[in-house]
Amino acid sequence: MKEKGKLIVISGPSGAGKSTVVNAAIKGREDMCFSTSVTTRAPRPGEVDGKDYFFITPERFAEMVERDELLEHAEYVAHSYGTPRAFVQRQMDAGFNVILDIEVQGARQVKEKMPEAVLIFILPPSMEELRRRLILRGTDSMETIEARLTRAREELKEASRYDYIIINDRLEEAAEEFAAILLAERCRYAQRKDFLETV
Amino acid sequence: MKEKGKLIVISGPSGAGKSTVVNAAIKGREDMCFSTSVTTRAPRPGEVDGKDYFFITPERFAEMVERDELLEHAEYVAHSYGTPRAFVQRQMDAGFNVILDIEVQGARQVKEKMPEAVLIFILPPSMEELRRRLILRGTDSMETIEARLTRAREELKEASRYDYIIINDRLEEAAEEFAAILLAERCRYAQRKDFLETV
Repeated sequence: MKEKGKLIVISGPSGAGKSTVVNAAIKGREDMCFSTSVTTRAPRPGEVDGKDYFFITPERFAEMVERDELLEHAEYVAHSYGTPRAFVQRQMDAGFNVILDIEVQGARQVKEKMPEAVLIFILPPSMEELRRRLILRGTDSMETIEARLTRAREELKEASRYDYIIINDRLEEAAEEFAAILLAERCRYAQRKDFLETV
Repeated sequence: MKEKGKLIVISGPSGAGKSTVVNAAIKGREDMCFSTSVTTRAPRPGEVDGKDYFFITPERFAEMVERDELLEHAEYVAHSYGTPRAFVQRQMDAGFNVILDIEVQGARQVKEKMPEAVLIFILPPSMEELRRRLILRGTDSMETIEARLTRAREELKEASRYDYIIINDRLEEAAEEFAAILLAERCRYAQRKDFLETV
């Protein structure tokens, strides 16, 4: 019997190292995939429909919202983005753990629509360290960095909605924790209920 | 800041390999300990008070029950056994994960008194395999083995009360799952709440 996958939602301040932790944890694994969002914005050069995004019309987007076909959705710079429920469900049914990297508001929507989703919040060890990392990254002005820090403090208030907190101090440890959460979640009673009936 | 330990309750049919899995998973770790029970039975030669058991009088036992000082207790062959709450709490406060290997009724009592306890049910891959292991072990009569199998089927009905199910098919995998559960539980929001307040 093929085990079903889980939806893994990750959030955390910009600069906390979300992608680095996740990529280190899932390297070489074939049971993991990332969610593909729908968007109303036009494809940029090189972007592939169904891979980078599902590019859809505003009418189709509105219809998806109406029919509750999105696990979460948001507006960003005059365009709409969302997570298609059917796509995520298909991947999970095929045994994949689906990773969804979204902001706290989106995570809240997902948890409401799919309570069995696993929510992981990835944090830097301190705000000072976060500032240091953002400065080191060298891509943001000091003004943007201060705005990111303010936003990070806001997001932290939502951390209690998350199932797990990973503190990305040492990357290896954080990646190990991420992998342990995936494995532990596979051992959850609800996940193995079907097996119990066959014993 | 020292992280507090957790109470890990394990149950499962005789022959499922509970001790083998746990011992393989915690080998060499210094953050783990086993709970020490109180009992009203007399010490056997070589048994050390406070190590094998806390040996107490029936009067003291009754008092502990009365004062809600036991996380669970049961009678067995005319003697009383129980898990002292204060002892477990002290070990957890000192940062140890405390392992408690008890039957399903005891596990239920513990979860009621300490909802944050983590309950893990360890199973053989099938009833046929359990029978095979019990026969191989060579310590029980066929009659006892059949009684154990009947009991195992009864216990299985309680599995839904457990947080996690480990299927001990391959020992290495089962031990890895046990270790992953311990690590994931350290990442739980409730466990890291204090940290969040210091970020």
